[in-house]
Amino acid sequence: MLNRVRSAVAHLVSSGGTSSQRSKSPDLPNATSAPPAAQEIPKSSREKPGNEVGAPQKTAETTLSFSRPTFLQLSPGGLRRADDHAGRAVQSPPDTGRRLPWSTGYAEVINAGKSRHNEDQACCEVVYVESRRSRSGTGVSREPSHNQGFCFYYWGLFDGHAGGGAAEMASRLLHRHIREQLKDLVEILQDPLPPPLCLPSTLGTPGVSSSSQLVSPQSCWSPQKEVTHDSLVVGAIENAFQLMDEQMARERRGHQVEGGCCALVVLYLLGKMYVANAGDSRAIIVRNGEIIPMSREFTPETERQRLQLLGFLKPELLGSEFTHLEFPRRVQPKELGQRMLYRDQNMTGWAYKKIEVEDLRFPLVCGEGKKARVMATIGVTRGLGDHNLKVCSSTLPIKPFLSCFPEVRVYDLTQYEHCPDDVLVLGTDGLWDVTSDSEVAATVDRVLSSYEPNDPSRYTALAQALVLGARGIPRDRGWRLPNNKLGSGDDISVFVIPLGGPGSSYS
Amino acid sequence: MLNRVRSAVAHLVSSGGTSSQRSKSPDLPNATSAPPAAQEIPKSSREKPGNEVGAPQKTAETTLSFSRPTFLQLSPGGLRRADDHAGRAVQSPPDTGRRLPWSTGYAEVINAGKSRHNEDQACCEVVYVESRRSRSGTGVSREPSHNQGFCFYYWGLFDGHAGGGAAEMASRLLHRHIREQLKDLVEILQDPLPPPLCLPSTLGTPGVSSSSQLVSPQSCWSPQKEVTHDSLVVGAIENAFQLMDEQMARERRGHQVEGGCCALVVLYLLGKMYVANAGDSRAIIVRNGEIIPMSREFTPETERQRLQLLGFLKPELLGSEFTHLEFPRRVQPKELGQRMLYRDQNMTGWAYKKIEVEDLRFPLVCGEGKKARVMATIGVTRGLGDHNLKVCSSTLPIKPFLSCFPEVRVYDLTQYEHCPDDVLVLGTDGLWDVTSDSEVAATVDRVLSSYEPNDPSRYTALAQALVLGARGIPRDRGWRLPNNKLGSGDDISVFVIPLGGPGSSYS
Repeated sequence: MLNRVRSAVAHLVSSGGTSSQRSKSPDLPNATSAPPAAQEIPKSSREKPGNEVGAPQKTAETTLSFSRPTFLQLSPGGLRRADDHAGRAVQSPPDTGRRLPWSTGYAEVINAGKSRHNEDQACCEVVYVESRRSRSGTGVSREPSHNQGFCFYYWGLFDGHAGGGAAEMASRLLHRHIREQLKDLVEILQDPLPPPLCLPSTLGTPGVSSSSQLVSPQSCWSPQKEVTHDSLVVGAIENAFQLMDEQMARERRGHQVEGGCCALVVLYLLGKMYVANAGDSRAIIVRNGEIIPMSREFTPETERQRLQLLGFLKPELLGSEFTHLEFPRRVQPKELGQRMLYRDQNMTGWAYKKIEVEDLRFPLVCGEGKKARVMATIGVTRGLGDHNLKVCSSTLPIKPFLSCFPEVRVYDLTQYEHCPDDVLVLGTDGLWDVTSDSEVAATVDRVLSSYEPNDPSRYTALAQALVLGARGIPRDRGWRLPNNKLGSGDDISVFVIPLGGPGSSYS
Repeated sequence: MLNRVRSAVAHLVSSGGTSSQRSKSPDLPNATSAPPAAQEIPKSSREKPGNEVGAPQKTAETTLSFSRPTFLQLSPGGLRRADDHAGRAVQSPPDTGRRLPWSTGYAEVINAGKSRHNEDQACCEVVYVESRRSRSGTGVSREPSHNQGFCFYYWGLFDGHAGGGAAEMASRLLHRHIREQLKDLVEILQDPLPPPLCLPSTLGTPGVSSSSQLVSPQSCWSPQKEVTHDSLVVGAIENAFQLMDEQMARERRGHQVEGGCCALVVLYLLGKMYVANAGDSRAIIVRNGEIIPMSREFTPETERQRLQLLGFLKPELLGSEFTHLEFPRRVQPKELGQRMLYRDQNMTGWAYKKIEVEDLRFPLVCGEGKKARVMATIGVTRGLGDHNLKVCSSTLPIKPFLSCFPEVRVYDLTQYEHCPDDVLVLGTDGLWDVTSDSEVAATVDRVLSSYEPNDPSRYTALAQALVLGARGIPRDRGWRLPNNKLGSGDDISVFVIPLGGPGSSYS
């Protein structure tokens, strides 16, 4: 029930990314360039300038075939406890170690047995972006000046399905793809002038950021469109998602990336938060008690019309097994000639149609809520990976219906004076399946008010409370919430990012 | 500038629907079944039961090749004044005649010369829907009982382009298509039980409304979806729009329906308002001073991603002339090899790409605001008609990119106790191009507060004030608003529908 992909394809369990295969393109982040496992000694999360490809690092070959986020600093014993479906101990970074940037809170818990390992992954980094221009010059500065680069803060939650490989790979590499996309924009984003419409062809040519690069407007018939700095960052994130997905397609066999993952990532860059979501994780801001949604979920229900339109325009993608029409339930052969409720790709309402032979095919989109499926297989319609995903007992590929593109929302941190109790909460669906936005807001209020405003551990305590509140306690043959309803048996991962004074409490 | 379709195709001027050609299908509303012109003596707006096809009525052949809504009750002299671009007299139904249902206010004014006639049309009707079941029985009752039928109230604004023919045809026939779609639903909509998933094949079989018609749920894998009564009405409206569009395609030559039209229609049915919009007209509710948007506009900008996706999936629709990529302005040959801002069908942000030869093609979507165009031709992406529309100096059809499907929003009138100052305002883009939602709300407050709450003429006065406020007065070689900005030179049409006590003031 909790699987996004039906059990027929869900038994593939990833064993993490320990292959030594290199990325083919030297410009792309390399799948083996970052330490995948928790056994590494934690290092500064600020990556070194110029380290975008990085030398392959020897990773410890252990008997453990899974990994948890590096920042959890788990010992081998801690890793075993994190992998224990019976105890379901909540994991957070240790109080004693280096805090996450901005004193970000984090907590996670493994599922109740639906998959062998925790298929969620997380990443929290400060990433330095060096301009291509400064690197292609005669000297690479060790102490980059203002115009040669900038940092972005980065948080990512990756919820895997049909194995943890895609989530693990994305958690190590997606921010590097974003960095690559931003390298061309370093000067442009720091220049108050509008972005130039046109750039010379050569990368690294001096003067890229100057408005003199603006090709003079043509177009009597159509004035040129003004493009904002924000929309360049959004475009960079969108293209980074696509490149990440393409890298998974290329390298999936070497890295055993058989499944896919949802991706919810946040960038803080030059005063703004960019929240990018592809999948069914969710982000909300709780500000002075008010809830501001920062994402929406992409599921067979919310994307029904996009999916149906694709099936209608490209019927070959449906094979002979599926119909692009939606029916309230599968049509039975005995109902031929009767009139049944349906809707097509153009409709939001329902109408009756006479049932014909083609309508006996399986509907492309079927089911409701958490049971909604595309091609009777997958319950989430955006994310990374899933390149091998086929319809059960068929060779029909599902990937053409999935989109790797996130929706990106922008929140300007400078437009409001945030207090220490204002937070951005990111959670995988394990949290949101059993917790409403307003319940999260109530927990934010309850937990944060019990800590001093300047206590940096309060955000971890809040993340733990949210995970515990969604997991429940073992009782009556299951994990139960205080109201005796079932808690989430899914993997649950939560980031709590304080908005009051970005970076001020970064240690 | 005001034309939705570039001047190359805008010179086609409709001469109204006076052809005697009959609809081919006896089940469909007939294009000649309603009086098209204002010369008719006004009759009761309540249509007779069973009159869905209607005998062709002889229409007065006059030298006037255009028509205005019947309810304006225009004399030949009045018709000439309504057609006068220089005077631009505001037209409303006469105070002395029969009021529109609910004391609805209406006002319109012709454009300042952009087209020969006023290409807006309007319709306001009370439509009786008789069940197919009651008619297919042995006796047709003259006094239909509760279950044999119901009435809906109907308001429609149709904003034509490239001629007034499509708007004129839609104003006469769209509500009849809606009636046809609702005929199958008469018993179902009046039955408190959920709609049956499946109906017997034979129309008019007794017992259709009974829940015993529910085929027992199958689907261990997927529980059957619950379909609401509302969504059946929405589906009926959606299909009616499609059938209206198909009828225009079939009959366009005989009726000289060369252009197209936006359609904004409202149904009041069984306690709820259904607001259906296909185009760039707009509906808002002003309730206790608060603005509730009841529609959104469909333009090349708001539908950019749908259009680009279609061009990407079906490149043959672009010919060799267009690219599905968007650029901030047209790319020039000398920019080959340079990198220019672009976005594709998946992106909301912008990024740079190296210009290749194919990028020199014209962008499928270009321009901003009122100048935005699909294929450099049309500025509205949903509506009825336009079956003949081609790219200027080309045989490439544009219709595949246009959608005839409305977005339908539902407003439950019973959920709030409305006062006499609460209104639903419908306007063509002539109103909204120069008037914001909040300016309309201010005018609602100003005008209605100057009339007694029970004065039925107050809504017409409000409609007139809105039209006058958007038209302005002739000054400094143009029509000017009080702030000296240009008023709208477009056709302007406005309905004001009072929400306080539906039907109570119907005379």
